[in-house]
Amino acid sequence: MPAIPVRNPRSGQFDYEIIPPSQEELKFLCQGLRAGQKSWQSQGIEQRIEALQAWKTEILAKHDDLVKALTLDTGRKAESILEVELLATSIERWCGLARDFFAEKVHKKSAIPFIEIHQELSPFGLVGVISPWNFPLLLSIIDAIPALLAGSAVVVKPSEITPRFIAVIQASIDAVPELAKVFSYLEGAGETGSHLLGEVDLVCFTGSVATGKKVYAACAERFIPCFLELGGKDPALVFEGADLERAATAILWGSVVNCGHSCLSIERVYVQANVFEAFLKLISEKAQAIKLAYPGVDDGQIGPVISDRQVAIIDEHLKDALEQGATLHTGDTACQPLGGGWYCRPTVLSNVAQGAKIIQEETFGPIIPIIPFEDEAEAIALANGTQFGLSAAVFAKTWEEAERIGQHIEAGAISINDCALTAIVHEGEKQSFKFSGIGGTRMGPSAIKRFMRQKAFIVNKAGVRDPWWF
Amino acid sequence: MPAIPVRNPRSGQFDYEIIPPSQEELKFLCQGLRAGQKSWQSQGIEQRIEALQAWKTEILAKHDDLVKALTLDTGRKAESILEVELLATSIERWCGLARDFFAEKVHKKSAIPFIEIHQELSPFGLVGVISPWNFPLLLSIIDAIPALLAGSAVVVKPSEITPRFIAVIQASIDAVPELAKVFSYLEGAGETGSHLLGEVDLVCFTGSVATGKKVYAACAERFIPCFLELGGKDPALVFEGADLERAATAILWGSVVNCGHSCLSIERVYVQANVFEAFLKLISEKAQAIKLAYPGVDDGQIGPVISDRQVAIIDEHLKDALEQGATLHTGDTACQPLGGGWYCRPTVLSNVAQGAKIIQEETFGPIIPIIPFEDEAEAIALANGTQFGLSAAVFAKTWEEAERIGQHIEAGAISINDCALTAIVHEGEKQSFKFSGIGGTRMGPSAIKRFMRQKAFIVNKAGVRDPWWF
Repeated sequence: MPAIPVRNPRSGQFDYEIIPPSQEELKFLCQGLRAGQKSWQSQGIEQRIEALQAWKTEILAKHDDLVKALTLDTGRKAESILEVELLATSIERWCGLARDFFAEKVHKKSAIPFIEIHQELSPFGLVGVISPWNFPLLLSIIDAIPALLAGSAVVVKPSEITPRFIAVIQASIDAVPELAKVFSYLEGAGETGSHLLGEVDLVCFTGSVATGKKVYAACAERFIPCFLELGGKDPALVFEGADLERAATAILWGSVVNCGHSCLSIERVYVQANVFEAFLKLISEKAQAIKLAYPGVDDGQIGPVISDRQVAIIDEHLKDALEQGATLHTGDTACQPLGGGWYCRPTVLSNVAQGAKIIQEETFGPIIPIIPFEDEAEAIALANGTQFGLSAAVFAKTWEEAERIGQHIEAGAISINDCALTAIVHEGEKQSFKFSGIGGTRMGPSAIKRFMRQKAFIVNKAGVRDPWWF
Repeated sequence: MPAIPVRNPRSGQFDYEIIPPSQEELKFLCQGLRAGQKSWQSQGIEQRIEALQAWKTEILAKHDDLVKALTLDTGRKAESILEVELLATSIERWCGLARDFFAEKVHKKSAIPFIEIHQELSPFGLVGVISPWNFPLLLSIIDAIPALLAGSAVVVKPSEITPRFIAVIQASIDAVPELAKVFSYLEGAGETGSHLLGEVDLVCFTGSVATGKKVYAACAERFIPCFLELGGKDPALVFEGADLERAATAILWGSVVNCGHSCLSIERVYVQANVFEAFLKLISEKAQAIKLAYPGVDDGQIGPVISDRQVAIIDEHLKDALEQGATLHTGDTACQPLGGGWYCRPTVLSNVAQGAKIIQEETFGPIIPIIPFEDEAEAIALANGTQFGLSAAVFAKTWEEAERIGQHIEAGAISINDCALTAIVHEGEKQSFKFSGIGGTRMGPSAIKRFMRQKAFIVNKAGVRDPWWF
């Protein structure tokens, strides 16, 4: 396969390349992982935990190399450090969950006295993971670790936009031979992802709605299950009586962290009319104070737009909003070129129409469009008025009131008096609504179960068998 | 839409017809159910249980009419009585499971002391069920009841081959007004099913692999989840040391009951070589004693082949096996015409090749092909040697040994020292392997969860909010 050049988000230079495997090489790799899976499964959970703990030690040993590669991949540093640290804590957390999960052995009585039921779980052989560029490391392992603990082999294809960390993480896997037999990363773009779908027994995809729909169709064609975590257009609702200072702080963070490149970032803000102006002023002041991480990577909080394709989308959404009469309170009318990269300041907008692209489509940038509402019913209707249903945030006078309102929002995770908490809190089990995804939760113990089929042994312990019974 | 004539399986006459709804009528019906769903969901589980109990009373009041319609639909009577009785007990069982299920309210601590997680479940609005002709009543409600208890509205389209029971069951639903607002049957064939996929939020399909693949593709296109329960080619394994008398009795029942029209019927028998002849003799004698339910519906155990399209498949499989040198021990070389219907006697075959159609494809008739094996490894390889993985049966000296062997069989339910126990025992949670299906278990409490999305409320109870934390 021809090499794929890789752009550096800070310099704009194509200073790296990846060489995707041929279809035969990919097939060979997958056959090897599949062969290794049998003993990975049969050796039991304690051995699998031991291998993952050994891997964690290797990751921590390569901490600086990983952070360096991720920083080159993404142009931002604080989030790169966070990714490596969260990987280590996430291994710990999953190992604990898996130990509890496998400790449960279910034997049930049936309605018939002499028939017993023994439940077991049987892992899928080979799980394929296709992951995006916004959190290249974290989103490549979020499904891989529970799948490995379930007893599956796993092959991961991260985005071709941020592939520099792959060599480092693969080296950390190779340092744990028993893990390397069942876990591998792959370099490649869409074509490699498409070939991968032909080799695995189950697919986890994180990415755009457009590609997610294609993955779903390909899985239906191949007749394998798929789990999709796609886009979000998460709303934040601010009601009168809410602590506006706190809401503005949280919403700003939820909107602009990682340059807004997060499926669970806040992309729309609805504020009750009688506190609208006060909130707008507060968040605009706070947004104004946020600095770009430019020229140095440590100079501020907002790194470059990672993918140059995203620049066009952000600009298109901004142009559409401004043409429809939106007012710009902070930021620029388009992404700005700086030193070869593209940057986007926290951009607060008002007078935005609910039908504008910036409200209806995923922008994936640090843009904060704010719309007033009159009452609870209108707020809920606006929040539910897109094709997305990933998560949401509600701020009200009390958390009880905010939670009651959140019950009407069509989304899997609702942060109460805070924003985007699924980025921090991983214990909540949640599923996506509407076009934000398909399939079981990727958090909590149920996430492990996704990679296993339930198997029931139904045991007739009676001495005789009635010839013609039902 | 033009009327669809319906064949009577005993007389061969087209003595009934159905009139499918137009696409507009179907859309109107679904909109009505969707509108009713909101209050069905919000009224809570006890009210839903009450409505289903009231429905059970109506079903029992219409017991004789239901049995009569089902007997006309299918040409067999004992199984029709069974279907109605099992529906009543299944309502009881699901109501009990649902009460336990909803009693659980999960509040979790997160890793951060001031953040709490409240878990909730949110039902899908409208569930579509498409069900087959082999157990027309039971398979139309097996997913509908847990979906209704979950809080969804449900629309069911049974097979156009056995639609006479629909008017009776619909009348029983209409007698419970609060249920009728959220639960409806539809008459129609493939085109109606296809339109239905365009109106619902989740699909449950029971039927053939070929149609199941199309349903999966259509759900991917529509971006909705689907649960598929498709064909089976369930093997029974008989090891030396097993009680052969018991095994022969159970396998005969598992193979021929309901004329073999069951996805979980035994369609292949593998017997250890040193007991092969003894087993063959036993089961042939027992098969010989089974009578056709002809000319009267009460005259024997085996009714007519329900679908005339199935006659061609059974005949094709028999022809292929016999041409490849199979030996016929009981039964005929093809289905027999009697009084306008088609009948198939219990048909024991030996000298059947593992590659024959009768071993590899779903026959759905009372055919018992028997193949010898030398040892456990060969038995497991033969059992796993098809594209199906629904269920299986293992007979050995002890149940412990049979269960150990069953752990190597790629199927969701393994009957131990008995056959096809999922027809009788509904407490085991099981998922399909390979082309036998996609998605969560349709038995046990997890079956209710399929119709709900997990929703996590993540509550930050801290007084302050750190401006820039992760």
